[in-house]
Amino acid sequence: MTKTDVINTVAPSLYRDGMALLAGAVNIVTSDGPAGRAGFTASAVCSVCDTPPTLLVCAKEDSSIGRAFMTNRAICVNTIGPAHEALAIRFGGKTPAEERFATAEWRTGVSGAPVLPGALVSFVGTVVKSERIGTHRVLFCQVQDILLSEQTAASVYFARKFHHVQA
Amino acid sequence: MTKTDVINTVAPSLYRDGMALLAGAVNIVTSDGPAGRAGFTASAVCSVCDTPPTLLVCAKEDSSIGRAFMTNRAICVNTIGPAHEALAIRFGGKTPAEERFATAEWRTGVSGAPVLPGALVSFVGTVVKSERIGTHRVLFCQVQDILLSEQTAASVYFARKFHHVQA
Repeated sequence: MTKTDVINTVAPSLYRDGMALLAGAVNIVTSDGPAGRAGFTASAVCSVCDTPPTLLVCAKEDSSIGRAFMTNRAICVNTIGPAHEALAIRFGGKTPAEERFATAEWRTGVSGAPVLPGALVSFVGTVVKSERIGTHRVLFCQVQDILLSEQTAASVYFARKFHHVQA
Repeated sequence: MTKTDVINTVAPSLYRDGMALLAGAVNIVTSDGPAGRAGFTASAVCSVCDTPPTLLVCAKEDSSIGRAFMTNRAICVNTIGPAHEALAIRFGGKTPAEERFATAEWRTGVSGAPVLPGALVSFVGTVVKSERIGTHRVLFCQVQDILLSEQTAASVYFARKFHHVQA
């Protein structure tokens, strides 16, 4: 299917108000490689299919972070619980890349992307395809390793604040 | 970027166990048009960008439901709260399409897709592009109307059960 013109649309501010009601996991998404370490906090992460195991992440197209992911291709989605909310805020702000990483310990995953020990779950993989949509790029990531923690609480972002749910 | 071979991968069962820890909103996604009414429950929904306002939904490729969405193009993502969890279970099972719809009242959104009154928020739009990934198809939907309810609680699916968060 190709792009089709849609005449009616909604204002960006109304769209953001609506999307604030779409509850989502909180993920610190990281990369490393030729373009250096990069990372950002995202709620726009979801599963695509289990065969092959593939997830997607939406990132801003015109940002140094987005470009780093496209160059490096190594990616890790670290889905967090309450213990890492301050870190998620740091990765969601304007702090330079190295300062973002400086306040936590990291390991290197099989694809080369930084893994956050103690995250609720980490999906380590490689960007295998991407699609530009408006101002953003959807990164399709094949998952090569999954690290599960012993945590049982997840952070959820809803109505512009953090909430917790318990397994 | 084109597809790239990734050698290491994880078993589908491990992938599903990992994804069970990615908390997500619960959405009853509906369509109507030449292929008839269709709908399914999805947690794989996320925002792509606000200009133009675009979200995405992942659907199984080889299903009558997936094909109906591709034919109709009209789509509505009804993000639900606790009041609609029984309905979400019905839309997530093997109940035939018309029986799924029979247990609730529906309105017709601007794109022609069925809107669930009382949903936490409904995003009415049109599928403008899609991408096949493995066994699934990612539907990119431009949003033409948003209906907000007076509800303040959202359902969240995490660790294979429903949870609630409050605005």
